[in-house]
Amino acid sequence: MKAYVHANIVTCDAGFNLFHDGMLIVDQGKIQYVGAYDVERLKDCQEIINYQDCWLMPGLVNTHTHTPMNLLRGIQDDAELHEWLTQYIWPAESQFTPEITTLAVETALIEMLKSGTTTFNDMYNPHGVDIEQIYRVVRQSKMRCYFSPTLFSSEQETTEQTISRTRHIIEQILAFNDERFNVMVAPHSPYTCHDELLQQSLLLAQQYALPIHIHVAETQTETAILLERSGKRPIAYLQGFGYLQHPSIFAHGVELTDEEIQLLAQSNTVIAHNPISNLKLASGIAPITELLQAGVTVGLATDSVASNNSLDLFEEAKCAALLQKMRRQDARAFNIETVLRLMTIEGAKALRLDKQIGSLEVDKQADFLVINPHDKIHLQPVNHMLSHLVYAVRGGDVQDVYIGGECVVRHGSVLTLDESETLARVQALKLT
Amino acid sequence: MKAYVHANIVTCDAGFNLFHDGMLIVDQGKIQYVGAYDVERLKDCQEIINYQDCWLMPGLVNTHTHTPMNLLRGIQDDAELHEWLTQYIWPAESQFTPEITTLAVETALIEMLKSGTTTFNDMYNPHGVDIEQIYRVVRQSKMRCYFSPTLFSSEQETTEQTISRTRHIIEQILAFNDERFNVMVAPHSPYTCHDELLQQSLLLAQQYALPIHIHVAETQTETAILLERSGKRPIAYLQGFGYLQHPSIFAHGVELTDEEIQLLAQSNTVIAHNPISNLKLASGIAPITELLQAGVTVGLATDSVASNNSLDLFEEAKCAALLQKMRRQDARAFNIETVLRLMTIEGAKALRLDKQIGSLEVDKQADFLVINPHDKIHLQPVNHMLSHLVYAVRGGDVQDVYIGGECVVRHGSVLTLDESETLARVQALKLT
Repeated sequence: MKAYVHANIVTCDAGFNLFHDGMLIVDQGKIQYVGAYDVERLKDCQEIINYQDCWLMPGLVNTHTHTPMNLLRGIQDDAELHEWLTQYIWPAESQFTPEITTLAVETALIEMLKSGTTTFNDMYNPHGVDIEQIYRVVRQSKMRCYFSPTLFSSEQETTEQTISRTRHIIEQILAFNDERFNVMVAPHSPYTCHDELLQQSLLLAQQYALPIHIHVAETQTETAILLERSGKRPIAYLQGFGYLQHPSIFAHGVELTDEEIQLLAQSNTVIAHNPISNLKLASGIAPITELLQAGVTVGLATDSVASNNSLDLFEEAKCAALLQKMRRQDARAFNIETVLRLMTIEGAKALRLDKQIGSLEVDKQADFLVINPHDKIHLQPVNHMLSHLVYAVRGGDVQDVYIGGECVVRHGSVLTLDESETLARVQALKLT
Repeated sequence: MKAYVHANIVTCDAGFNLFHDGMLIVDQGKIQYVGAYDVERLKDCQEIINYQDCWLMPGLVNTHTHTPMNLLRGIQDDAELHEWLTQYIWPAESQFTPEITTLAVETALIEMLKSGTTTFNDMYNPHGVDIEQIYRVVRQSKMRCYFSPTLFSSEQETTEQTISRTRHIIEQILAFNDERFNVMVAPHSPYTCHDELLQQSLLLAQQYALPIHIHVAETQTETAILLERSGKRPIAYLQGFGYLQHPSIFAHGVELTDEEIQLLAQSNTVIAHNPISNLKLASGIAPITELLQAGVTVGLATDSVASNNSLDLFEEAKCAALLQKMRRQDARAFNIETVLRLMTIEGAKALRLDKQIGSLEVDKQADFLVINPHDKIHLQPVNHMLSHLVYAVRGGDVQDVYIGGECVVRHGSVLTLDESETLARVQALKLT
């Protein structure tokens, strides 16, 4: 057993406990004790790590991203979503090779780990992706993820071919038999998938008992396309295929009516909230306050760096809080505790991993991050640690990160991947 | 003469030049050459600093902040502006001593320098502030500023007393005779100053030929108070006293009609834009796109850390861009060049310092910052340097900062102030 002592620990569990001068004991990667400092409990510990006056919180959960796009940061900004996708992003992705996408994922893993993210939910264009290569690098990083190939309708492929290719990747991932590397079924969106593909995707998800991960209600344009196609808005459209009866995570959820929010709540459908990407692509602000009030589970997400342009969930969290205050014209809306929950336990719930991660509780995995405010003028004085975690901390402030009790970032350096070697390979790369 | 070579230089001048593998030559603190690398010009240089592949841009300008409040970060979040001011901020400020406010300013100077800010525009409650002490620490930092005591109406003081006290501070500052330490006349706002104080403040500004710095049109509540008091909205109210005929910087400008925007443009009144503070206090989003279209000069600002909770202008700039895209429902709105101008030359114009600073041009002061993207995974690959400067860089990425050609930050450490000693004093402080 190993003990982390004298840290200020925010558990993010149901009671939302804050232990000043607290103590976390880890055994075999799992939390064995969390609470007040107790010298008696140290007897059984082989190692004691002193995090005096440091801040310790659960590892962050990114509920929607596209790591194989991580080399596309900044290739085109200031463009509207549909133009951006069709003229810049998809053509760039079509040039990808397995070496490029694996390298992209590697840079994303490093970027996420350094800013305190320990679990992510990926959805990627399978073109140019070798899942075996990707799995090796993710396994090496020690991160937890869902890594789901996107299903698109295209003129190059029949629905049957798309489903068959996806089924093959799913079986590869299931064969890894690694609890840290999971998969969902990920039809891209109701407006980029034909009806047959939406139906077949759901069947696939049912057959393998996997959740669905899909972009939904991101823009007014999407709603207009679906209304034109079917007379239905996105939620009703997907409801028609049975998506609300299946465990699903809907990324975005910007364009939602009150009735649709109620439908999501009743069906236990989950929202992945991407506030920065939604602003950058001028999509709007998702009604997160109303979703939470209705009882919908909402996780926080960065989307890809191509529309953000960062994977820093601390930045995302602050932005989420600020936007809801403004939207509701109420500075008290979306308070500090709500934000910290979204970054951790609500994200874990959204990914249906909350039995394992998302809060610091006995028997959960020891996934956590540590911030040392002592030498940081922008985190002083410590009038309110939780306020600083939401409003003043940046991803770059994260000092140490642990996954399953194993140190993966120490003093800001990733231990599980070779950052300088990865940087050298990125800099040697010539992207057209 | 000293040369900075092989840097990628964005000038932020009228032509918005970008010199890849460029060169900046500084003589006696001023820019002697900026442009393409030219080996011939190195002959006269005593020192040559190689910033190969680094990014070099003008020092940032923070057009509205309150540095003596810098120890109040996080004392109360999630509260509405008027409640927040009257129940938390003003009572806390009333406890300040000169030692506390000087220490607060010192922490703010360090925080600003480390994130690339070289010039700031301060407005502070003069209670507990010793301007001689403050001047010593600002001079030591080498930063440029306006440091203006706020005028409030209160029951403890007559207008005459307030004016007399302010006049005394202005004369102290003018006696410093330091071009880096300036002052404006700073009535707090139209709703916290009685008519007589607003009139007398303007007279004082006219007498000393100083600009006015005032909070204006920040919230709906302010507009309602003024409508109730006078039947006029904030801009018309101040216009009635002659404020639009005098060089003035209005902080916030959230609540503005189209007609008011035209009035500001015609009168050359300037806006200091504080997007994060305006969100956090649920004030709203200022119509910056419309202000710029009308020809109003807009500078970027952080407000104080009590309502932000950071002094990082890179974070502020990204937020400003994202908000205008969303507001205008146009992802093309507020593009990268616009944002970089707001951070630099437009801020300098707002403070009427654009003859000296704000862009890298011959004969201007050599105020600039340097970022080294080589070892930063979140700034790779360098698909688009200017995109990264707006959307991916954080204040903590700033490596070196120069003011008047003198290095004030090197490898992220402030050279002009003693950061670790300041941190120790902050940590020893017991704030009630």
